[in-house]
Amino acid sequence: MAQKVTPMSEDYSRWYTDVVQMAELADYAPVKGCMVIRPYGFALWENMRDHLDRMIKETGHVNAYFPTLIPESFMKKEAEHVEGFAPECAVVTHGGGKKLEEPLVLRPTSETVIYHMYAKWVMSYRDLPILINQWANVFRWELRPRLFLRTLEFLWQEGHTAHATYEEAEEETLKMLEVYRVFAEDVLAIPVYPGAKSDSERFAGALRTYCIEAMMLDGKALQAGTSHNLGQNFAKAFDLVFQDKDGETRHAWNTSWGVSTRMVGAVVMMHGDDNGLILPPRIAPIQAVIVPIYSSDEDRAAVFPAAETLKKRLAEAGVRAHIDSREQHKPGWKFAEWEQRGVPLRIEIGPKDVAKAQVVLARRDTREKTAVPIGEAADGLPAKLEEIQRALFERARKFRDEHTHAVDDYEDLKKLVEKGGFAFAHWDGTRETEAAIKEETKATIRCIPFGGGAEEGRCVRSGNPSKQRVYIARAY
Amino acid sequence: MAQKVTPMSEDYSRWYTDVVQMAELADYAPVKGCMVIRPYGFALWENMRDHLDRMIKETGHVNAYFPTLIPESFMKKEAEHVEGFAPECAVVTHGGGKKLEEPLVLRPTSETVIYHMYAKWVMSYRDLPILINQWANVFRWELRPRLFLRTLEFLWQEGHTAHATYEEAEEETLKMLEVYRVFAEDVLAIPVYPGAKSDSERFAGALRTYCIEAMMLDGKALQAGTSHNLGQNFAKAFDLVFQDKDGETRHAWNTSWGVSTRMVGAVVMMHGDDNGLILPPRIAPIQAVIVPIYSSDEDRAAVFPAAETLKKRLAEAGVRAHIDSREQHKPGWKFAEWEQRGVPLRIEIGPKDVAKAQVVLARRDTREKTAVPIGEAADGLPAKLEEIQRALFERARKFRDEHTHAVDDYEDLKKLVEKGGFAFAHWDGTRETEAAIKEETKATIRCIPFGGGAEEGRCVRSGNPSKQRVYIARAY
Repeated sequence: MAQKVTPMSEDYSRWYTDVVQMAELADYAPVKGCMVIRPYGFALWENMRDHLDRMIKETGHVNAYFPTLIPESFMKKEAEHVEGFAPECAVVTHGGGKKLEEPLVLRPTSETVIYHMYAKWVMSYRDLPILINQWANVFRWELRPRLFLRTLEFLWQEGHTAHATYEEAEEETLKMLEVYRVFAEDVLAIPVYPGAKSDSERFAGALRTYCIEAMMLDGKALQAGTSHNLGQNFAKAFDLVFQDKDGETRHAWNTSWGVSTRMVGAVVMMHGDDNGLILPPRIAPIQAVIVPIYSSDEDRAAVFPAAETLKKRLAEAGVRAHIDSREQHKPGWKFAEWEQRGVPLRIEIGPKDVAKAQVVLARRDTREKTAVPIGEAADGLPAKLEEIQRALFERARKFRDEHTHAVDDYEDLKKLVEKGGFAFAHWDGTRETEAAIKEETKATIRCIPFGGGAEEGRCVRSGNPSKQRVYIARAY
Repeated sequence: MAQKVTPMSEDYSRWYTDVVQMAELADYAPVKGCMVIRPYGFALWENMRDHLDRMIKETGHVNAYFPTLIPESFMKKEAEHVEGFAPECAVVTHGGGKKLEEPLVLRPTSETVIYHMYAKWVMSYRDLPILINQWANVFRWELRPRLFLRTLEFLWQEGHTAHATYEEAEEETLKMLEVYRVFAEDVLAIPVYPGAKSDSERFAGALRTYCIEAMMLDGKALQAGTSHNLGQNFAKAFDLVFQDKDGETRHAWNTSWGVSTRMVGAVVMMHGDDNGLILPPRIAPIQAVIVPIYSSDEDRAAVFPAAETLKKRLAEAGVRAHIDSREQHKPGWKFAEWEQRGVPLRIEIGPKDVAKAQVVLARRDTREKTAVPIGEAADGLPAKLEEIQRALFERARKFRDEHTHAVDDYEDLKKLVEKGGFAFAHWDGTRETEAAIKEETKATIRCIPFGGGAEEGRCVRSGNPSKQRVYIARAY
């Protein structure tokens, strides 16, 4: 570990970039706004992806792959959609050495091409529902890129479904939001507020957008997943019709939902500290790193076999363990490096430990060190990792709760979002008030929560009657 | 199953397209040359990908992700590389509503951007080797597209490694070719000839290209994987240097290797028949389909629980089983559909079977039907699937061997490649002769085999001395 990360208290933004780069999660690519996901960062993403992929399949969805290149004319078929996405599009104008007759857009999202295909495949109500997901790269021209959080190209999954009725589509939209909530909380250890977006924050072309919102350690919000009820907007634009049971021809009802590599950034910003990354055990590429400690060849000969035996036992118990056998680095150097890389548990084994049949366990989250018998370390590690997983979630939830405040005075709201935190405040439900709040505080309505916020009150900005508190915060 | 596929004997090319579309592996996308991989085709690809991914990781490689967009200037840094790929490039000229200062190429392959990044990361010999793989979409402008075989966009993995010495790079190149051979033969049941490409068939920018070549059922060759020793060509173009043990600064040695969704097409063309697809059990999305047979509600009530119990037992035995419970179709219709989709085993259960505690097993490859006790069916299925896997490979190998002929007369060679088959013939090793053979027979040198072909002889075209027989065939 050559360098230390900038302390979080000094500059949260630089701290983030330092952690991402020094832990070798990602690096800047030659094209501005693009990034390279390095092996350690990609192994983290693979673990996240595999978890979420299982959850998506368990809820009855199948994967497929649709093309990246979309005819420009497709983007224009749904009026709101083109308005929202056209300014962000990357456009291919030449192919095979020739100018194309029609420019092609690199998918910023795939509603258009996917519903065009569904229109080909669907004839009758028997062909519904279609429950398809795809893992893909998408492209949105970003003027203020940040590694993982906003990049010109990113990786994601996008689910696209078609249903015979509005009710089914709405049920699907909410079901997938719940999948995302469980994924964020149980797998990434990130507590979230689920709810609905206001009309001005809706997905371009959707009837209604639901989301889960997380609070990062600087008190800013990060949208961690969205699920859209698209109504019949795209079905009408792409002529996606089916013959219903009664013989009538009807337009299908669609939903779409997505989670991206942005969540890698969320994991960094949620759990890290001034020593670097802290990874939740369920997604950590290495859950336990074994660092052998020795200075003589004799010690080395005693320590390595013990380390190997332990690693084998851990592998059998399903723990992703790694022995750091590099000769060119001292143990202290290795400790700092693995801390920077956020490995949940470090296991130190020196000659004295071998003699006493023990190891020293060091937790990354609390930095506690304890000597435990080697057998106990092997058998007890899965439970210890689960304990860390829970502790990270609880710590994050405590932080979020402490930084969420019911606010009834507009000046208090301004101060809160400036300092960092979520205001839970009454809003009169109008676009005008929402725009004024954004203009005056740089904060937005993150979500209208499903439960808990419904009560009579007065809008924090306009003083007009309100029936609902909403979360308001500055956001990534 | 609405339609029957065109018989193979009538039109192999239409047979192929029919099978791919009717089995719902893929469909044409709105942009000419692009395709949609439908859920059944994608599940097949996922199984192939997961097998190969494990093999790549077991040989010490890690995954990462590099950007799709490559500055046009990068493509020009390696002279042969740009010559080979420039005519196939898709070019982004506009982004975020503006014309770009420098056009960006959609990666046709990622050597350029990857070695640029390695140059940033590598300082000393201690940073080598770098053993990275990526799964990605790539773009090559195709004028004569065919589903899976040649499409404008396709999915693949591309490995890119950097080494301190030539020897290590050559060893890596051959190691990965062997991984591909095992993958093709043991997983896809496709026998291959491994060997080296001639200079004119080399990858653009490589020192040497190795490949595995398969023979499809029309006797034409399909290149099923390539592994390139890139020498120091890209290291020199991208300034990829390292400080060696002796303190000297040296250029690294690179390799790259790839396998793509083209292999889905190879599986179709290798194993299918006039009834449709035949899938090797190891990669079949559904390995056994259970078709309940009943005409009355009473029979239905007897048959379904037996089917459910069997499915559960098969799942426990690790078999991917599916019950076709659709009410709108008759068993005969279902049989034909699952045959078209290539499911290796069909299990029929009717009321008489339930009474006798038996099921009827139907093999897709041989179309044999046998009644077996239900317990035997459950326990014996994994072995039965392995038997089918081996049988498919043996059948393919027999076909290939019967259609490979040592040929010493040029007229015989012409007839053989016209009819379909591999000629094993002497070649004088010159580019001129190779070009003449291609011009006159539409066949190319598929590979110079590693073993077996070395002997003194006379070139089949020029009559000049030759030390080696090579495989010559028309190819996809």
